[in-house]
Amino acid sequence: MVLVDELRRILPEEQVTVNPTVLEQHSKDESYHTPHLPDVVVFPKNKEEVSEVLKFANDHEIPVTPFGFGSSLEGHVIPYQGGISIDFQLMNRVLEVRPNDFLVRVQPGVTRTQLNKELKKYGLFFPVDPGADATVGGMAATNASGTTSVRYGVMRDQVRDLEVVLADGRIIHTGSMTAKSSSGYHITGLFVGSEGTLGAFTELTLRVYGIPEVISAARAVFPSVEEAVATVTDILSAGIQMARIELVDARSIKQVNLYNQTDYPVKPTLFMEFHGNEAGLQYDADFAEKIAQDHGCEEFLFETDSKERAKLWEVRHNLAYAFVHKSPGKKMMVTDVCVPMSELGGAIHDAREAIDRIGLDGALLGHVGDGNYHSIIMIDVDDPEEMKKAAELNAHLVDYALSRGGSCTGEHGVGVGKTKYQQKEHGESLDVMKAIKFALDPKGILNPGKIFE
Amino acid sequence: MVLVDELRRILPEEQVTVNPTVLEQHSKDESYHTPHLPDVVVFPKNKEEVSEVLKFANDHEIPVTPFGFGSSLEGHVIPYQGGISIDFQLMNRVLEVRPNDFLVRVQPGVTRTQLNKELKKYGLFFPVDPGADATVGGMAATNASGTTSVRYGVMRDQVRDLEVVLADGRIIHTGSMTAKSSSGYHITGLFVGSEGTLGAFTELTLRVYGIPEVISAARAVFPSVEEAVATVTDILSAGIQMARIELVDARSIKQVNLYNQTDYPVKPTLFMEFHGNEAGLQYDADFAEKIAQDHGCEEFLFETDSKERAKLWEVRHNLAYAFVHKSPGKKMMVTDVCVPMSELGGAIHDAREAIDRIGLDGALLGHVGDGNYHSIIMIDVDDPEEMKKAAELNAHLVDYALSRGGSCTGEHGVGVGKTKYQQKEHGESLDVMKAIKFALDPKGILNPGKIFE
Ligand SMILES: Cc1cc2nc3c(=O)[nH]c(=O)nc-3n(C[C@H](O)[C@H](O)[C@H](O)COP(=O)(O)OP(=O)(O)OC[C@H]3O[C@@H](n4cnc5c(N)ncnc54)[C@H](O)[C@@H]3O)c2cc1C
Ligand SMILES: Cc1cc2nc3c(=O)[nH]c(=O)nc-3n(C[C@H](O)[C@H](O)[C@H](O)COP(=O)(O)OP(=O)(O)OC[C@H]3O[C@@H](n4cnc5c(N)ncnc54)[C@H](O)[C@@H]3O)c2cc1C
Repeated sequence: MVLVDELRRILPEEQVTVNPTVLEQHSKDESYHTPHLPDVVVFPKNKEEVSEVLKFANDHEIPVTPFGFGSSLEGHVIPYQGGISIDFQLMNRVLEVRPNDFLVRVQPGVTRTQLNKELKKYGLFFPVDPGADATVGGMAATNASGTTSVRYGVMRDQVRDLEVVLADGRIIHTGSMTAKSSSGYHITGLFVGSEGTLGAFTELTLRVYGIPEVISAARAVFPSVEEAVATVTDILSAGIQMARIELVDARSIKQVNLYNQTDYPVKPTLFMEFHGNEAGLQYDADFAEKIAQDHGCEEFLFETDSKERAKLWEVRHNLAYAFVHKSPGKKMMVTDVCVPMSELGGAIHDAREAIDRIGLDGALLGHVGDGNYHSIIMIDVDDPEEMKKAAELNAHLVDYALSRGGSCTGEHGVGVGKTKYQQKEHGESLDVMKAIKFALDPKGILNPGKIFE
Repeated sequence: MVLVDELRRILPEEQVTVNPTVLEQHSKDESYHTPHLPDVVVFPKNKEEVSEVLKFANDHEIPVTPFGFGSSLEGHVIPYQGGISIDFQLMNRVLEVRPNDFLVRVQPGVTRTQLNKELKKYGLFFPVDPGADATVGGMAATNASGTTSVRYGVMRDQVRDLEVVLADGRIIHTGSMTAKSSSGYHITGLFVGSEGTLGAFTELTLRVYGIPEVISAARAVFPSVEEAVATVTDILSAGIQMARIELVDARSIKQVNLYNQTDYPVKPTLFMEFHGNEAGLQYDADFAEKIAQDHGCEEFLFETDSKERAKLWEVRHNLAYAFVHKSPGKKMMVTDVCVPMSELGGAIHDAREAIDRIGLDGALLGHVGDGNYHSIIMIDVDDPEEMKKAAELNAHLVDYALSRGGSCTGEHGVGVGKTKYQQKEHGESLDVMKAIKFALDPKGILNPGKIFE
């Protein structure tokens, strides 16, 4: 109780809690990783409060784990060493929209949908869309990305400036509002993706984009995953600017139909979107359709109506939940490797073989325009045999990707689930990363056990 | 002579020199900064040699300054503390082109034009184009950018992986070949722009792009700089994807005509380029022209012929040299601030006023689509009065930019010329940068005196 009392000297009483339900909510993410309770959860309202909490924690060497929406998939927010969970939900204001600069200044607890709702008033949108309604703080901390990254880039590409509270409570700004800068070291990009291990973000300046003049979506059905993937590679090689290009395999479509009352053909499918001006978009879309036909596409349907389009992407975004909600008692493991585009065909083929060989019921899907693909496996965490199989699949996919110049995680991040692959992926540069961690958080209070073993 | 003898034990004799001409070549860049000789220049042929040199230098605490093409503008390559200048000109091979991955693997001494010549065979190009024929190593080390960054991004956006030799000789790879990764800390972006102060790059993996289906350039003449700048802001707000959009003021055009035997109207001019498919490009170009007309554009000329287009950009790229070659005995100072787009109009207006008030003969130009603008001033470095005026202008422009959320350098980097503004721009985050520098180069042998005072 001493910890709580001390924290209540720093923050208003109602912003510090040991309520068991709240502790439980902050003990887990949306994955199969084993939960662990924090000792206390705090809800700061501004940077000064975050700074005071961190100063206190640093002085007393108490672990601190930032918490956004808790939608991460590799145990990122689980406080395995207890301590303080800092929840940013009370810092959820859109502070400033600067339409002429295509910038927005927000607090970390703002969620993706909240932000887009506000931006719409200005004819603007924020492109990064992990399936979940994540917070921008969490998204920056994991370098999230998603369906639109093939066109607009990942979270790191959007962050112009971060206000960061360091382990010892110092408050810094990492960047500026300009489109370019060659001043000082680029630490903005370093903090993005640091998973709460280098500092807590209390404000973000993000790039936003004009809503395109015309948007058109399409769904293309293929006889095989191979043909679908070959279509993606050819479309990108042809220089067609895709806004989204997503692979959803037959197993996934089966689940989609089950959950959404759709009746899409149960075959490998590409979900696509085009953004542009009328003339240019038509040209690109026709070209993409032609390429798909060359690969035996069995059905190519445009969804120009904005409602139908929204439905298409809702279905896609709900895919993971389609598995979760239809698998009571099970937990989700989502693998997340990324390979260079030229390796994608072979990689997807190998992934299907591995799933079948190991004997799991796995779906394959992904942001294939970036070479990033997932398998979704629902597992009974109390069944050691099933856990072993899932771990075997994960390890196999990572090994395959790394041996082809790939990465063990395209977007979900390391958390605790991928720490064991860090040495293999990064070699000696892992020591550089550790040196930076030590320089900025010498007592190791920030999200200990994440990224590094 | 001891230093040379020691180095000749590490490298073949002909790769180590104290030839006065060579020393002199490595004592300066292309700017007004005072030269200083290195003690010795080495020309390594591979990473192992670079590693051996650095190990030796680190053991003996000898300063080491990497040298690419020497085209930097803030004294970056000047070895003010003597020691070893490492010239990468013998490491100039394009190692691998991966067309399907839109990647190329190169050695650091490869120059921009050399790279594009090779890529052309594959229908590819590398977009970043500082005016000078810089090396990719130098461009990565300064986070260079240029006319095409408004569309394709800056150097940092292109670098997927760096092979880096650290201060103590360790060799690391910072990234991978994938489009995305959320694994480990993003140290690639940290090394990009580190100006030789964190390590020496011995290999780079860079993004490349398909040569667009159609390219069209245009030159638009305006009654005033204000109208030209307003056109830029409106074009970007309209969502028109510009490949290049450059401001060249009347003073610059005067010099252009003098140097290139052109007879462009001596008025504020925008140089533009559009990339895309036929249909989309035509639409964008028409829209841009309409916006320009709304701002009183007096002449809007398309250059569709590839020779004429090449000529246009040659003229633009030669602008600095147009001043240099017509100002014998003088040295060039190029200011380089960057502001948010909404501040651009006011900033350019203020810059002109400041140049006139201080009483300098300065031209204004810039990559205005990024809010990045330069003034070019030719100065007699032996005239203390002129030096004082130039310094006053530089300081004024930096102060103005910083007070508007801008940066003291949009693309040229800090070198020695901008160290004095680092505290003001970065505040306490400068301490974070210093902590990283100390963690990676504790003896401070790498390009000492650059970035940090
Ligand atoms: C159904 C589903 C689909 C998904 N699809 C995608 C996808 O397509 N792409 C993708 O990238 N991810 C995806 N994810 C994973 C997840 O949504 C992302 O990782 C997201 O970025 C997490 O955001 P969050 O707000 O939930 O963060 P949390 O899970 O709360 O936290 C994530 C990490 O960020 C840190 N953190 C949170 N806030 C801060 C802060 N203010 N300062 C510093 N650190 C902070 C935490 O400590 C933790 O390490 C998906 C998840 C689910 C459940
Ligand atoms: C006429 C003219 C126009 C210019 N226009 C632009 C422009 O539009 N945009 C722009 O960004 N710049 C511009 N510049 C500046 C300059 O061209 C760039 O900074 C360029 O990136 C420097 O490349 P370089 O090969 O000449 O590097 P150098 O000048 O040799 O070195 C620059 C820095 O990089 C370091 N370095 C070099 N090689 C390595 C390596 N292998 N590993 C680690 N560090 C290394 C050096 O130590 C130094 O700190 C211009 C310069 C001139 C003369």
